[in-house]
Amino acid sequence: MGKLYAEISVSLDGYVAGPDISPDNPLGEGGERLHDWVTALASWKESHGKSGGSTGPDDELMKQSIARGGAVIMGKNMFGPGQGGPSDDGSWQGWWGDDPPFHQQVFVLTHTKREPLQLSDTTFTFVNDGPESALEQARDAAGDDDVQIAGGASAIQQYLRGGQLDELFLHVAPILLGGGVRLFDNLEGADPKLEPVEVIESPAVTHLRYRVSR
Amino acid sequence: MGKLYAEISVSLDGYVAGPDISPDNPLGEGGERLHDWVTALASWKESHGKSGGSTGPDDELMKQSIARGGAVIMGKNMFGPGQGGPSDDGSWQGWWGDDPPFHQQVFVLTHTKREPLQLSDTTFTFVNDGPESALEQARDAAGDDDVQIAGGASAIQQYLRGGQLDELFLHVAPILLGGGVRLFDNLEGADPKLEPVEVIESPAVTHLRYRVSR
Repeated sequence: MGKLYAEISVSLDGYVAGPDISPDNPLGEGGERLHDWVTALASWKESHGKSGGSTGPDDELMKQSIARGGAVIMGKNMFGPGQGGPSDDGSWQGWWGDDPPFHQQVFVLTHTKREPLQLSDTTFTFVNDGPESALEQARDAAGDDDVQIAGGASAIQQYLRGGQLDELFLHVAPILLGGGVRLFDNLEGADPKLEPVEVIESPAVTHLRYRVSR
Repeated sequence: MGKLYAEISVSLDGYVAGPDISPDNPLGEGGERLHDWVTALASWKESHGKSGGSTGPDDELMKQSIARGGAVIMGKNMFGPGQGGPSDDGSWQGWWGDDPPFHQQVFVLTHTKREPLQLSDTTFTFVNDGPESALEQARDAAGDDDVQIAGGASAIQQYLRGGQLDELFLHVAPILLGGGVRLFDNLEGADPKLEPVEVIESPAVTHLRYRVSR
């Protein structure tokens, strides 16, 4: 069985999205700056069907990240805007266009009932019976490979509270958002043990990998 | 003129002290874990007049930290418990005993009027006319050397808001405090530009140095 890991970009002040989130602005005010380091990379462009982009340590890391996961879990707000928004309408196909960058099975934690959605080589399966079920399905899909929780904050928090998370891989952007969605929130009762296992330095972002145990 | 830098230990979830701070528990619940990496070090023990302790990268860094500053600025809550507590009484001599670990001039931001307090080779001067005055006095004392803001959070925030900070040196402890005093708070109107300039990895703590500009 592979590891369950969460990988996410976070501001130095601890936010994974900025304030004033709306359907037109899913990352909130300034939140797109969290991902500036990613969108410039050659590997990211390639996984989005584009050419060009920068190479270097961040790009090597992103290549490994893209290749690593055997399946992905995400929260409903990462797949689409919340309750009552277009994600409750069967026509919503995610933020990523016809060729989403996941290229594997993605399990979406949601109360919305919906048939699986296949877009290119990514399949979104909508899981209505909770995070443990989503984890079981993702582990089945991943086989011996690792399962990634791609976000958002509340999905990561659920697995931290549940004690199932094995690894936390943070991309710390050198920005202060001053408000928005905090990564480390709603963790009452969770007391994970964190152990720094790898640090990767770059001018654009600092990558911190922690081993997580109960 | 030297740099103005803030150096402080912070939990991975962004706290510089835990919840439920009291005179008996100045770092709040669990807050002493922020400094576990420090109190074990040979250089720290030496600066506190003790022998023994561990050596290695964290210890080398602490030696440099102790040697670096030409003067220190701290908030009143770092010097003593807040308004109405023993810090308003002239008998309070700080948390550190007869031989405080600063060994230089320390400027305390406070509304309490009090004559300077000398303990061994550390002098505490109580500044009542605001952070700019404290900075000016500290720069005079430091000469060409750097001035350190040792904490707490609100002192660092004042100089971030004022745009005077040149460097932020964080010791990120691999713990989640879940509540307490946030380092990055009360920064409305401040929009500092942060640039990662150094990362030092160790099993106990991750050291992140940022250049700060307006």
